[in-house]
Amino acid sequence: MSKGILVVASGFSGAGKGTLLKRLLEKYDNYALSISATTRAPRAGEQDGREYFFRSREEFEALIQEGQLIEYAEYVGNYYGTPRAYVEKQLESGKDVILEIEIQGALKIKEMFADALLLFVSPPSAQELERRLITRGTEDEKRIQNRLRRAGEEAEGIDAYDYLLINDDLESCVDAMHSVIQSEHCKIQRNLGFVQTILQELKSL
Amino acid sequence: MSKGILVVASGFSGAGKGTLLKRLLEKYDNYALSISATTRAPRAGEQDGREYFFRSREEFEALIQEGQLIEYAEYVGNYYGTPRAYVEKQLESGKDVILEIEIQGALKIKEMFADALLLFVSPPSAQELERRLITRGTEDEKRIQNRLRRAGEEAEGIDAYDYLLINDDLESCVDAMHSVIQSEHCKIQRNLGFVQTILQELKSL
Repeated sequence: MSKGILVVASGFSGAGKGTLLKRLLEKYDNYALSISATTRAPRAGEQDGREYFFRSREEFEALIQEGQLIEYAEYVGNYYGTPRAYVEKQLESGKDVILEIEIQGALKIKEMFADALLLFVSPPSAQELERRLITRGTEDEKRIQNRLRRAGEEAEGIDAYDYLLINDDLESCVDAMHSVIQSEHCKIQRNLGFVQTILQELKSL
Repeated sequence: MSKGILVVASGFSGAGKGTLLKRLLEKYDNYALSISATTRAPRAGEQDGREYFFRSREEFEALIQEGQLIEYAEYVGNYYGTPRAYVEKQLESGKDVILEIEIQGALKIKEMFADALLLFVSPPSAQELERRLITRGTEDEKRIQNRLRRAGEEAEGIDAYDYLLINDDLESCVDAMHSVIQSEHCKIQRNLGFVQTILQELKSL
């Protein structure tokens, strides 16, 4: 069994990443979603080890010290991070593991795991992104426009990604994402063992 | 409409490349097979512009002089080459163009077209390759073994390929090939225009 691929999925807020990943995991069975650790309090209905691993600040800082997080960051007073053990266990078992993470974290992952696959999910246009955020109705128009402008500024580094997935139609985008990840298993660099074996077999016939 | 991708398909003789490409073109309609020019005489049933562009030695050498071939080589006294005009016309029209070519020619193509996609088709094992050649029944066992040993030796350069496709089951291999080529259209590097546009749209909202 070959090792799984570490996949990092990022995208503009409102690009539909959450729905996309949920559907990918429903539709195909070779994926595992990485579960983050956080120091923020669980919300109603959230369960330790499902949405997040909920940890105290002391526990979280111990994880950092012990090198047990692949990456972590602090947002509005709370830590969020990716536990190494869970990811590595899933990869070893052959699952492709997906981390949903923002650009700066993704670039750190790529430095540490050169063969991580970085996917960026985008809506078909800025207008469509705006329309989706307005439809969602959780923010007023001014906040949405600020958020979009910031998204444009924060997208520095996007050209370090491997693939762009345009989320126009959900099912097509899920299938494209699946194709991109599965194609990655066919990369020559991931199959050098097979290549060496068959060349030796040929020469010794 | 985005430009097509130049795909180079190589593989061990007996790996089933011919059948694979035929099935790919039957099953999906976004591909064109490059047609080679040659100085060898047409065989019964072969038609100019379908199997090959049949040219005289003088005509072929004129094509070389005028830079009208992407690559060419001489085998057993005959020239074989890839006409540039046909390939470029198909790429411009958005078709993914497939060249079936051996390793040395493929590496030359990659030098000239850095974004060409190089695919190597392999049987699941050397034993299976030998079995297929024996079943084909056109050569005796000694010639087959010589040919296989040579295949092993000629495979130098295979690690410059992008993807390895293992042709175990025909339909699965056709679908994997299609996935790999279509995923290539999602590469960030092929979509920088889109990325620039959406970032500018976001900033100007």
